[in-house]
Amino acid sequence: MGKSKGFHDLGFAKVDTGRALRRGFPEVVYCPGKRTEHILSIAKEILRRKQDLLLTRLNEAVYGDLRRSLPGLRYNASAGLAYLRSSRKHKPVKGTVLVISAGTADIPVAEEAAATLEVTGIRVKRLYDVGVAGVHRLFGSARLLKGAAVIIVVAGMEGALSSLVSGLVACPVIAVPTSCGYGASFGGLSALLAMLNCCSPGVTVVNIDNGFGAGYFASRVLAARSGRNY
Amino acid sequence: MGKSKGFHDLGFAKVDTGRALRRGFPEVVYCPGKRTEHILSIAKEILRRKQDLLLTRLNEAVYGDLRRSLPGLRYNASAGLAYLRSSRKHKPVKGTVLVISAGTADIPVAEEAAATLEVTGIRVKRLYDVGVAGVHRLFGSARLLKGAAVIIVVAGMEGALSSLVSGLVACPVIAVPTSCGYGASFGGLSALLAMLNCCSPGVTVVNIDNGFGAGYFASRVLAARSGRNY
Amino acid sequence: MGKSKGFHDLGFAKVDTGRALRRGFPEVVYCPGKRTEHILSIAKEILRRKQDLLLTRLNEAVYGDLRRSLPGLRYNASAGLAYLRSSRKHKPVKGTVLVISAGTADIPVAEEAAATLEVTGIRVKRLYDVGVAGVHRLFGSARLLKGAAVIIVVAGMEGALSSLVSGLVACPVIAVPTSCGYGASFGGLSALLAMLNCCSPGVTVVNIDNGFGAGYFASRVLAARSGRNY
Amino acid sequence: MGKSKGFHDLGFAKVDTGRALRRGFPEVVYCPGKRTEHILSIAKEILRRKQDLLLTRLNEAVYGDLRRSLPGLRYNASAGLAYLRSSRKHKPVKGTVLVISAGTADIPVAEEAAATLEVTGIRVKRLYDVGVAGVHRLFGSARLLKGAAVIIVVAGMEGALSSLVSGLVACPVIAVPTSCGYGASFGGLSALLAMLNCCSPGVTVVNIDNGFGAGYFASRVLAARSGRNY
Amino acid sequence: MGKSKGFHDLGFAKVDTGRALRRGFPEVVYCPGKRTEHILSIAKEILRRKQDLLLTRLNEAVYGDLRRSLPGLRYNASAGLAYLRSSRKHKPVKGTVLVISAGTADIPVAEEAAATLEVTGIRVKRLYDVGVAGVHRLFGSARLLKGAAVIIVVAGMEGALSSLVSGLVACPVIAVPTSCGYGASFGGLSALLAMLNCCSPGVTVVNIDNGFGAGYFASRVLAARSGRNY
Amino acid sequence: MGKSKGFHDLGFAKVDTGRALRRGFPEVVYCPGKRTEHILSIAKEILRRKQDLLLTRLNEAVYGDLRRSLPGLRYNASAGLAYLRSSRKHKPVKGTVLVISAGTADIPVAEEAAATLEVTGIRVKRLYDVGVAGVHRLFGSARLLKGAAVIIVVAGMEGALSSLVSGLVACPVIAVPTSCGYGASFGGLSALLAMLNCCSPGVTVVNIDNGFGAGYFASRVLAARSGRNY
Amino acid sequence: MGKSKGFHDLGFAKVDTGRALRRGFPEVVYCPGKRTEHILSIAKEILRRKQDLLLTRLNEAVYGDLRRSLPGLRYNASAGLAYLRSSRKHKPVKGTVLVISAGTADIPVAEEAAATLEVTGIRVKRLYDVGVAGVHRLFGSARLLKGAAVIIVVAGMEGALSSLVSGLVACPVIAVPTSCGYGASFGGLSALLAMLNCCSPGVTVVNIDNGFGAGYFASRVLAARSGRNY
Amino acid sequence: MGKSKGFHDLGFAKVDTGRALRRGFPEVVYCPGKRTEHILSIAKEILRRKQDLLLTRLNEAVYGDLRRSLPGLRYNASAGLAYLRSSRKHKPVKGTVLVISAGTADIPVAEEAAATLEVTGIRVKRLYDVGVAGVHRLFGSARLLKGAAVIIVVAGMEGALSSLVSGLVACPVIAVPTSCGYGASFGGLSALLAMLNCCSPGVTVVNIDNGFGAGYFASRVLAARSGRNY
Repeated sequence: MGKSKGFHDLGFAKVDTGRALRRGFPEVVYCPGKRTEHILSIAKEILRRKQDLLLTRLNEAVYGDLRRSLPGLRYNASAGLAYLRSSRKHKPVKGTVLVISAGTADIPVAEEAAATLEVTGIRVKRLYDVGVAGVHRLFGSARLLKGAAVIIVVAGMEGALSSLVSGLVACPVIAVPTSCGYGASFGGLSALLAMLNCCSPGVTVVNIDNGFGAGYFASRVLAARSGRNY
Repeated sequence: MGKSKGFHDLGFAKVDTGRALRRGFPEVVYCPGKRTEHILSIAKEILRRKQDLLLTRLNEAVYGDLRRSLPGLRYNASAGLAYLRSSRKHKPVKGTVLVISAGTADIPVAEEAAATLEVTGIRVKRLYDVGVAGVHRLFGSARLLKGAAVIIVVAGMEGALSSLVSGLVACPVIAVPTSCGYGASFGGLSALLAMLNCCSPGVTVVNIDNGFGAGYFASRVLAARSGRNY
Repeated sequence: MGKSKGFHDLGFAKVDTGRALRRGFPEVVYCPGKRTEHILSIAKEILRRKQDLLLTRLNEAVYGDLRRSLPGLRYNASAGLAYLRSSRKHKPVKGTVLVISAGTADIPVAEEAAATLEVTGIRVKRLYDVGVAGVHRLFGSARLLKGAAVIIVVAGMEGALSSLVSGLVACPVIAVPTSCGYGASFGGLSALLAMLNCCSPGVTVVNIDNGFGAGYFASRVLAARSGRNY
Repeated sequence: MGKSKGFHDLGFAKVDTGRALRRGFPEVVYCPGKRTEHILSIAKEILRRKQDLLLTRLNEAVYGDLRRSLPGLRYNASAGLAYLRSSRKHKPVKGTVLVISAGTADIPVAEEAAATLEVTGIRVKRLYDVGVAGVHRLFGSARLLKGAAVIIVVAGMEGALSSLVSGLVACPVIAVPTSCGYGASFGGLSALLAMLNCCSPGVTVVNIDNGFGAGYFASRVLAARSGRNY
Repeated sequence: MGKSKGFHDLGFAKVDTGRALRRGFPEVVYCPGKRTEHILSIAKEILRRKQDLLLTRLNEAVYGDLRRSLPGLRYNASAGLAYLRSSRKHKPVKGTVLVISAGTADIPVAEEAAATLEVTGIRVKRLYDVGVAGVHRLFGSARLLKGAAVIIVVAGMEGALSSLVSGLVACPVIAVPTSCGYGASFGGLSALLAMLNCCSPGVTVVNIDNGFGAGYFASRVLAARSGRNY
Repeated sequence: MGKSKGFHDLGFAKVDTGRALRRGFPEVVYCPGKRTEHILSIAKEILRRKQDLLLTRLNEAVYGDLRRSLPGLRYNASAGLAYLRSSRKHKPVKGTVLVISAGTADIPVAEEAAATLEVTGIRVKRLYDVGVAGVHRLFGSARLLKGAAVIIVVAGMEGALSSLVSGLVACPVIAVPTSCGYGASFGGLSALLAMLNCCSPGVTVVNIDNGFGAGYFASRVLAARSGRNY
Repeated sequence: MGKSKGFHDLGFAKVDTGRALRRGFPEVVYCPGKRTEHILSIAKEILRRKQDLLLTRLNEAVYGDLRRSLPGLRYNASAGLAYLRSSRKHKPVKGTVLVISAGTADIPVAEEAAATLEVTGIRVKRLYDVGVAGVHRLFGSARLLKGAAVIIVVAGMEGALSSLVSGLVACPVIAVPTSCGYGASFGGLSALLAMLNCCSPGVTVVNIDNGFGAGYFASRVLAARSGRNY
Repeated sequence: MGKSKGFHDLGFAKVDTGRALRRGFPEVVYCPGKRTEHILSIAKEILRRKQDLLLTRLNEAVYGDLRRSLPGLRYNASAGLAYLRSSRKHKPVKGTVLVISAGTADIPVAEEAAATLEVTGIRVKRLYDVGVAGVHRLFGSARLLKGAAVIIVVAGMEGALSSLVSGLVACPVIAVPTSCGYGASFGGLSALLAMLNCCSPGVTVVNIDNGFGAGYFASRVLAARSGRNY
């Protein structure tokens, strides 16, 4: 698994320094449950190695604290995502990812997906609030659907939109269930199960509210499309 | 609660003889878990009172046994439903119920709904195999959708079809989740939750595989439409 | 699905402008998870088109903010529902909807159903706190039960009331499970399952606490009763 | 816990010989998962000590096998219960237990409860098929309800009957959920949850299909009523 | 169900005025989800009829508000229970109820059971913190166990104590699962399931944290023991 | 949505004739719950249009029946998959899919994925029985891992293998939970949840045992890689 | 992870040849879902390397088939376990494992644990049918409890026995929930949750019915006790 | 179970004074749900008997209050654990426990395990942040793995790390699922199920977030290793 040790040991954390090389994407920091000083130490180590820094599920207050020590750190409040791009240039990647949301309340998760892609230099288009309650809103965007290399569908409640979209296109569709809803949505379980039971093949699913995971996976598909795996 | 006692006591069962008058629909016999001789005694009591007989979830072997004692009993094998209509005429009911199935495997449940309605003299149209994997199959039937007084949507797996149909029409939509599927469909739970979380209002839901319940409810809506409640 | 585009694109939302025509009920705004400025923009677009405005699950503080920009917006605090009726007259609809609650704590959900109906000009009667712990309270209102064209039953805990009511009437019964209860009510799951497993046919179910959905569906049944679907 | 060892060791089983003295009821053999020869050995040990023998959940084939070695063993096929009463007389117990079933399919569980009581010399009355779909069938038996010292209510599907009965009487009500039903009854879970969430106090619950447990508990209440605990 | 109407209609509530006569226990007010002014109106109606007043799950702040209008209202803070006994004397009831808690954190639920009994004039003994982790603490109280007419066992986590106690006594055992615990206790589900699956017969179960229900049921058993049902 | 109607109506089914054009993959027939004569009619319609025929979850007996009417139909017994390739040539697709199974019992699901890909002309490599219990078996195949354009990981029980594989590669990883296991695997739920909660990004998930869905999705990724979407 | 490749590749399986050295226990074959010829090939490879062979969850018919090719293979029918010990001697291990079952129906799982230990040369004592319904049966064996180095407790239904045993001893207790029970035992879930929520520390848990896993783990504890890890 | 009474009765609690002798570990106080004055009384009783005091799940504010009355009480904020060691010396125990965490957010639970061990004088090594997303971080510590007598693996999300570690070592592995994660981790359920379904034998599991339980159990294994059970 590589000749060098491949990580930097901070005691409370072992920063995976070989990840960009091995996986085509540097280590991303999932912030919940981590202390601010821990996030800071990890972030500094990543930056010291001239890699892109991406912090997910970061709330605005902690961002404020971090920013003092990490000038240049930017924040996408809607997505809860902070990032600081290294000076290294991303190789251009062909193809556009279309991020679709079923409702307005799903937008933060959709933005997490979109921002993850944009940070790594991938072109994103957005199509928001086209849920199945008014399906003509989706059909009005047939050209957007056809032009996408990958589609990410973000939906809560009954999670029906991914089945519908998948039936219309040839490209891979990544479904993100969200916790939008109440009662028998059981925190996103309803949408999750619906998406897993999709009668229309061509759909895979990530965890509830995991916009980052969908964006990351889409970047891997596009890298594959470009004839290289990282 | 009526002046007469309102039921006939068979010991193991108390046949609700006032139900047709009270509810506009005679007592219907749900067969699972009942012994054949019990079903037979209940059926005879219903027929003795010149009421329509409807037996649900009856398997073909038991039907064979019952038929010997109940000449004229007819059987809808696809729906698992036996019936014997009384000589009394049903008052004509205005309006048509459209029964839609998402897939071919959902047809037995759809037929249970359709047969329940037809036994009571209500006009039914069928639109089968128009699931969201190929949504143009549904849109090809726009006239059928618009012409229905009530629509019953029968779907398993992700149960997305009821949301979609509901978004297209003004009439009430009754959703029937089915146990078609595998894995994370958990015996119909996935479709059930999706239908309950429908983002498009105008949908109510019955139990998994309960085609009879959907047909019965639709008959109550049409009776209301006809300006009488029974 | 219609020749015009049928929606107005606000970027973060696509207001479904054809909904009143297509479905007989204008787009209703479900507020949780939406930013106040988004709710406001959508509301203004709906009003600009001279349609009835209905905002559900709106808390009082946000209502206060909205009201400054939307003079005339009224608020039903018990139901958490704000509305502003257009000057257009509703065609009169025949028939009354009876809204029943099992307990006092179920009243907010019952009021959401009742208010949804009243906003659209439908006559509503209320029968509150008649749960099965003292069933004579229900039987004391036999006339109310018989006179209803549609009945909505709102109940938490064991959700038994819808079965009982359904056994007494011929009209359609819509059951709304509520999250009232504790322990093994699991946030309304107990009532939901009970209502779905109703041994008395003639009952359909909506999501937990979904008073709006029940009211909306009842309005669709009455529209059918009035001989038109919208 | 007593001076003697209080059990007889068969190696694979330790027959609790002090149970009748300690608990007022001899050890009862739950048969599923036990080999026939094991059941036989345990039974013989109980009989050797001149105690009443009660075997629950015994299927008819195994009963046939056991009977050859245990002449006098009787079988209640509906309840799946075999028993052989010792020659010792039961002290008379005051009061009657009323066993109520919601439907015909719940009778086997109701019979398990009733037979458990009758084997120990307690008077039982039965009231079957009085579920909430036709509630007048229950009200027609008001005298039976009032005359009972304890009531056992056996119901599947939505399990509403125990709430209703409890609201009418002053005596303790023991609720037995059954696995009768399909779909969202989830093997009796629906009835179980409903009974646990009973809005009418005075109800306690046993495991799904546990007619024996309800009968046993009722016998303990009556023993208390008779002024002794065993 | 009786000749008089049997309830008093407050609009938002229908106070069940016949309950003491019918059930041997006046209507008890479950407070969560009810507005303070509603609780007050119901309480006044109960007091006007000279019945005992019992308010459950009442928090201390609301109690403070109520007390101003209801002088004499007393409060058991540990149990979250307020009460005001009428001047009518309770007929003496024979027998003692033993309330057992597994741990110290289960005491509030145990106190709810104990206080419910004491308000109605029933003698209660307490045996707290005798969980299975140190079973000798239970065996040190064998005399208390033997002397009880009914035992209530309150336990969270694995809920094992009810099985153990039941194996030692002849009297009825009522098990109350509590939500004490974390992780895989899933809010009391673990204890609830364990108690329902009790291998030792003689146990019935109430809802999670439902100390009141257990106390109420125990009072019904003792009333039965006293040869009258109310 | 295409100019032609786009489907062929068989009454019980509507064959989606435009799917190959629209989605790059012809309609695939999921066989469970369908009658043999229905499968046959659908198959004939697909073949009549000179499209590839793929039948999933077909048992061997039904295959035997179908084969008489469909000469040339081939069967992969391990995968439960029948197919008949049209004479049209598939355009060559660049890239290999690596199908990995954790255990020997997962092979049928892995074969369903592999066969789905091979039928459509995509190169597949297999790496079976490399679960985490002996992780060196996976590391011995580092070259295979690096050379894949897409990886499908099939695993039951704890479903840990997809996380591990994903951490080693840059290409997209599709995880297929299987129902292999017992007890707390709850029919594949354990593996499903584990895969959804993957701490290593780059993984998406399909339904339990859905080898076909994983294969289909991988073919969509490779089609994208080849610079066309169908 | 070792210099040699460490496994033997059979194509459908990769036999982990280094496991005995690495883990102190050779690869054990879990049979469900594996074809008989696959089991045979794996078994032969293990024997060829002069390692102990252990096959779990093997039914008697398959054992019969295997035995023809594997003379000397022995079978423990109660445990569903086949084994063939190599001629190599096990180093003696100090300490006895006590295997306790709550009921008679739990014996097959208990035997799987016991047999797993005995095959590897570890001394086992058995104490069966000492469940909490008659707790004196356990206390009668205090010496056995004190003398054990490790205790395995096997119990279904409410799974209370592990808490009780753990409270009495100082040694590690391994709890095995079983699927014995019905209704709300939900296939062993009830016992599993109870054991995980054990209020008495010193207990860890394995999967439902996983007697093998408990035996294996106990052998690892004893190896540790003997001052070596394999 | 011993001649003396073995506990000290405080009314609200019965302090188990014989526990250190019986179990080799004094009573440990689980603080949630207990009042501060109750914790204090129990603590004083333990200290009065010159035993080690260990308080788990204690928040910092309550610690502050307790400390005033219990000088010398120390607090591990990361683990939420307070302790006060008696002057008695612990007998030295051979062997080291290795505590591994998958991520940084799992550290508090890992610290609870480590601190529990250290308080009782057992040597602990820590290996944090070596989750499967970068598995080389684990392999870089092969010597640590080999040198441990017992390993505790703490992981949330997919809980895969325990399977992986177990496959590499011969010593017993105790798995602690944590509630780290979101969405379909369902509060730690995902990790719990994964660990229970471990395909690699040699793993047992404790409750979600139960670091204390894992530490306690490990101390019991080492006590066994040291040739004594307490």
